[in-house]
Amino acid sequence: MQFELTTSYVDELKEAIANKNNALLKTRLLELYAADIAIVFNQLDVTEAHYLYELLDEQVAADVILELEDDKREELLSTFSTKEIAEQIDNMQSDDAADVINELPENIQDEVLSQIEDVDQASDIADLLSFEEGTAGSLMAKELVSVYLHDTVSTCIDEIRKQTDNVHVMYAVYVVDENHKLIGMLSLKKLIISHPIARLQEIYNKDVQFVKTSTTSEDVAEIMQKYDLVVLPVVDQLGRLVGRITIDDVVDVIREGAEKDIQRMSGISDDVDSNDRLWRLSRARIPWLLVGMCGGIIGSRIIGSYESHIQIHPEMAFFIPLIGATGGNVGVQSSAIIVQGLANNTLLGDKIAGKLFKELGVGVINGLICSTLIWGYAFMIESWKLAATVSISLFVVVLSASFLGTFVPLTMNRFKINPALATGPFVTTLNDIIGISIYFLVGRLLYHVF
Amino acid sequence: MQFELTTSYVDELKEAIANKNNALLKTRLLELYAADIAIVFNQLDVTEAHYLYELLDEQVAADVILELEDDKREELLSTFSTKEIAEQIDNMQSDDAADVINELPENIQDEVLSQIEDVDQASDIADLLSFEEGTAGSLMAKELVSVYLHDTVSTCIDEIRKQTDNVHVMYAVYVVDENHKLIGMLSLKKLIISHPIARLQEIYNKDVQFVKTSTTSEDVAEIMQKYDLVVLPVVDQLGRLVGRITIDDVVDVIREGAEKDIQRMSGISDDVDSNDRLWRLSRARIPWLLVGMCGGIIGSRIIGSYESHIQIHPEMAFFIPLIGATGGNVGVQSSAIIVQGLANNTLLGDKIAGKLFKELGVGVINGLICSTLIWGYAFMIESWKLAATVSISLFVVVLSASFLGTFVPLTMNRFKINPALATGPFVTTLNDIIGISIYFLVGRLLYHVF
Repeated sequence: MQFELTTSYVDELKEAIANKNNALLKTRLLELYAADIAIVFNQLDVTEAHYLYELLDEQVAADVILELEDDKREELLSTFSTKEIAEQIDNMQSDDAADVINELPENIQDEVLSQIEDVDQASDIADLLSFEEGTAGSLMAKELVSVYLHDTVSTCIDEIRKQTDNVHVMYAVYVVDENHKLIGMLSLKKLIISHPIARLQEIYNKDVQFVKTSTTSEDVAEIMQKYDLVVLPVVDQLGRLVGRITIDDVVDVIREGAEKDIQRMSGISDDVDSNDRLWRLSRARIPWLLVGMCGGIIGSRIIGSYESHIQIHPEMAFFIPLIGATGGNVGVQSSAIIVQGLANNTLLGDKIAGKLFKELGVGVINGLICSTLIWGYAFMIESWKLAATVSISLFVVVLSASFLGTFVPLTMNRFKINPALATGPFVTTLNDIIGISIYFLVGRLLYHVF
Repeated sequence: MQFELTTSYVDELKEAIANKNNALLKTRLLELYAADIAIVFNQLDVTEAHYLYELLDEQVAADVILELEDDKREELLSTFSTKEIAEQIDNMQSDDAADVINELPENIQDEVLSQIEDVDQASDIADLLSFEEGTAGSLMAKELVSVYLHDTVSTCIDEIRKQTDNVHVMYAVYVVDENHKLIGMLSLKKLIISHPIARLQEIYNKDVQFVKTSTTSEDVAEIMQKYDLVVLPVVDQLGRLVGRITIDDVVDVIREGAEKDIQRMSGISDDVDSNDRLWRLSRARIPWLLVGMCGGIIGSRIIGSYESHIQIHPEMAFFIPLIGATGGNVGVQSSAIIVQGLANNTLLGDKIAGKLFKELGVGVINGLICSTLIWGYAFMIESWKLAATVSISLFVVVLSASFLGTFVPLTMNRFKINPALATGPFVTTLNDIIGISIYFLVGRLLYHVF
């Protein structure tokens, strides 16, 4: 059932566009949902996309705009006049409209806003634009149905009927008092099964969860996930109902959050994807490479201080990569577990000591396994001194990497720094340096004593 | 508004439980949602949890069971008789009930099932248990409202009224033909605003998206995300409506998918969290550590073959960590971008060559920056020969790591192996080995020639 994009499909469309074969194009477009049309658009150049766009039904066109990737949308919108953009935006929900305007070049934002015909829509969008990004205010839509306690079910249904064109998806109506303060809610299901002349105060649900406009998107996502909500009302500082957030927007927040964490863990400092420009990709990646290089230079100084030792025992150099890699791997594993626990809220703040002990326990077990194995190998192949050096220092390195991998993200979290930053080049670099220090220290001691 | 768990709160509860202060406990429990009670339960020992559990209202009790962490649930349920478990399960939606039974010890699963009083519920659960995990069948609930084309709006509402206790959340009703084949849907909103004597065939929506019971959970999640759905009907091989999947279950699938990817990227082979037992944590982490160690041993053999060279030029050892770390970091960055693109579907299968070129472009830019900087540093501190060796090999290593970091996950994906596996110890280890080979090769050549 799901749409699969193939090269031949795209080629057929491109050809039809070149030949202005509108009959075929319209048939193809009718077969697709807006989300799929957007995927097709991503494969076309901007003139082709513009041509195809003009063939779309008004409402579908607005949906396609929303589903496009950011740079593709920017590109396509730049082929329209501000008047045309304003017309598109008139067909969107207020939250989506605000997102689109927000991404327009600053110099035309006001112009587009002023050309929106529906004054209410324009004012709603202007309201939404004033909220800071990453807050409930910036996520919410203004379209909702609110009713009063003394209303009956049938007046409530009339209200829904009036609003039906505005509010595309609806799962509940909200009950407000005379000051428009949120005091309850009513699911559509409850509304359907209630008698038409029943008063809302007899059937409404007082226990309504809500957030403030200033609540962060992450908290909104957490609340909606935790309590399995599909829609969450938003109130202002005075408790007045100002909007609602639907689960589809929050799903995007969750997905983007996970993606950002993966990028941070991989040492990518900016939100980029493989379709971004070369230079942006480079710039997002160079900072952590430089941090890693600084670590490498510090490592070179440490090894440098053992130069004469290496001259006599060049075999000491053999296991530098093994020590570094194992320390790095252990550190990444430990910190991934902690970062995840923090993201999940399965870690309570006051249990740091317990977690550290547990990680050290895992470190002892895995350290013993690794160092026993490497002892066996190095003892067979190299001298017993080198074998002892490698296995002893490997054990210590595994322990210290477990400790750091746990301690660093927990500490970062306490100081409100995103702990995912720790699970990448940072912990790896730190463990590299510490690993080498331990290895050469143990080596010099052992070779010196025996 | 959100519940914050503190140590003092838990202590108060523990004391109240010890003193059997039921009045206080009941007040506290009434203030909380089921999801929050579950968080409290995670902090109690099993006797305390059982005591508190007995004070809960029947429906809340069932919800708490569902919200508990897996091991906590197992622990708590083991304090109940099969009869008591069956009573709890009677209060759950069929999909949740099937999940709970699935996690019970095998020997009591049948017993619990046979003791469920509601025969329909028992048969629904038995049906659901037969679906393979990770499919739409295992995600869906059987509770839904289906209606016929010739029904009127008011019969439809009567049907909803009848089912209201069974179907806890409802966003739409489904239209089926006489063979129970899914042919359309009707949103509750549409139902509310339509005239009571309107026939469904005049107002229903033919364009309904659905999945088969055998569709994978990942595909379900993708479809619901892409098309912004809150509920998705499920049909059997013959197209007959058998269940529906709600977005809350899919949000869990999305979150767990992201968590698993992060674990795979971090070299953790099993799904574990920091609350798991020591031994499980160790076992989940040892495989990739051993892979990394094998890489380290291969590295030691490569360096070993340059033993005499190191004896004369011990300074060659200084930059081993820098080469390894930079190669590792670049590889992880490249593969993270690719893994993400694949997860997002922003990468089309036939664009591999383009991606490789782009990554190489990024590699050239960042490689030039890194190797210029290291040249400057090493030239000042060390000999020009070492400086040249480090900077030339660093450039080559950055390029080769960019290539591998892109190529390996793309290839894995083509062979249907989860590409997230590549973005971890595997690519890092590979890059370590290749980096060292390049470094010493360049070093020997340079020192030999000049």
